[in-house]
Amino acid sequence: MKGILYGIGVGIGTSSGLSISALETIKKCDVIFFPNKSRDDCRAYQIVNSYLNELETKKLCFCDFPMTKDEKSLAQAWEKCAGMICDDLKEKNVAFLTIGDPSLYSTFFYIKELVEKNGFKTQIIAGIPSFCAVAAKLGMSLALENEQIHIIPDTDDLEKIFLLSGTLVFMKSGKNLSKLKDFLISHKAQIREFGAVSNCGFENEKIMRSPEELDEKLYLTVVIVKKND
Amino acid sequence: MKGILYGIGVGIGTSSGLSISALETIKKCDVIFFPNKSRDDCRAYQIVNSYLNELETKKLCFCDFPMTKDEKSLAQAWEKCAGMICDDLKEKNVAFLTIGDPSLYSTFFYIKELVEKNGFKTQIIAGIPSFCAVAAKLGMSLALENEQIHIIPDTDDLEKIFLLSGTLVFMKSGKNLSKLKDFLISHKAQIREFGAVSNCGFENEKIMRSPEELDEKLYLTVVIVKKND
Repeated sequence: MKGILYGIGVGIGTSSGLSISALETIKKCDVIFFPNKSRDDCRAYQIVNSYLNELETKKLCFCDFPMTKDEKSLAQAWEKCAGMICDDLKEKNVAFLTIGDPSLYSTFFYIKELVEKNGFKTQIIAGIPSFCAVAAKLGMSLALENEQIHIIPDTDDLEKIFLLSGTLVFMKSGKNLSKLKDFLISHKAQIREFGAVSNCGFENEKIMRSPEELDEKLYLTVVIVKKND
Repeated sequence: MKGILYGIGVGIGTSSGLSISALETIKKCDVIFFPNKSRDDCRAYQIVNSYLNELETKKLCFCDFPMTKDEKSLAQAWEKCAGMICDDLKEKNVAFLTIGDPSLYSTFFYIKELVEKNGFKTQIIAGIPSFCAVAAKLGMSLALENEQIHIIPDTDDLEKIFLLSGTLVFMKSGKNLSKLKDFLISHKAQIREFGAVSNCGFENEKIMRSPEELDEKLYLTVVIVKKND
C-alpha cells in the first residue's frame, strides 16, 4: 500500500506551538525526514523530540541540503532526498519536517514536486510562521484594521521597500542583516515601532528593541518595522 | 493574586492546528473570553470545544464587538470587555481567544492595551494564520527563495497593489470580494497561479481554483495570487 508524504510545519522554538495536527500526523508516520545533516544541527528535531516520546522508535533520516545558490547542486540534493522518500512511500507514510510553516520559503516544495511526479500523494500540515511567533514574543501586532503586511526575505533595494505602506517584516541573518541594520539606523526618524527576535523560543533567544541592537552574528533574525506612514 | 491575560490564537478550522501551547494555556485559565455574541456564532468556541473536554467547567464569556467602523461604538465595546476582563484578572488567569493568530488584524490588541493600562500583565500565544492554513489546503507555496509576500486586507487601489512583486494574499468577503473578483478576471493574463479557500477547515469549506469561482456570499475568503513577474 502506497503511503502519503506529509510536509509538516513544526513552528519555531521548543516552547512554541507545534500543532496537535502536526503531532498526530508525525505519530502516524513510520519515517521522518529532517532537513539537516544531523540531529545536533536540527531545530525541527529538537522541537519534535521535546513533545514525542516515541520519536526514536521511528526511522529518522537527516537529509542535508547545501547552503548554495548553485542550481545544479541543489537539484541533485533535492532529487537524492526525493528518491529516498519515494522508496519509503512504497509501503509507509513519510513526514518531512520544516521549521515554521511549509508554505513559507521551505525546501519541501521542491521535494513535493518530485515526489508527486513519481505518482505519490502529498499533504501539507500548516505551522506557526516565525514572524507570528516573534510578534507574540514582542507583544506587537503585525497589523490592525486595513494595514498591509510585507514579508521581505531579501535586502535588495531597501529604499524602494521602505516606500511600501504598513508593516515590513524582514527575515535575515549574516551580511544581509548588517546591511539592513545600517539602513534602519539611517532611517530611524521614519520608524514608529521596531522589534526583532533572534533564535525565537530557544535558549539563546535574543530580543532587540532598536535597530542598533541588531547583530549580524546571530542566526535567523526576524525584524518587524512599522513606519510613520 | 493577580492573573495574566493570555491572547491566544486558535488557528482556523476544527481539524486544523490548535497548538499544544494554546491548549495548555487555555487549560490553566479559569475564564475564557470569546469575541462573539454566542457559542453558536463563535468559530473559536467550535475549535476549542472539539479539543478540550473540560471547557464547560470554566467561566465562558461571549463578548460581542459591533461590526462598524464608528470609533466611539468600538471604543465603548472594547472598554466594556476590558472592564469585565480586569475584574476577573484580580484573582484569575484569563484567556481571550482569536481565530488565526492574535498579531494579525485581531481585536485583542485593543483589549490588551486597556488591560495593561490597568496594571495587569498580558502574554500572546501565537496561532496558525488563515493564509498558511489556506496555502496548506491548496498545496501551494506562499513564497520560495527571495519572493516577497504582501498581505492585503483592503481592496483600495488594486492597480497599484498589482504592481507589487511576489505573492499577493487578499483576505476579504462580501462587496470587497466582488470587486476583487472583477479585477482579477480582467487581469487574468497576468496571473501565473491562483487559489482561494472560504471557510477553511469547516464543513462548508469551499476551494476555488480560478477568479471566476469567487463568490461574494461566502464568509471570509483568502485569495492567493502569484503573478507573471
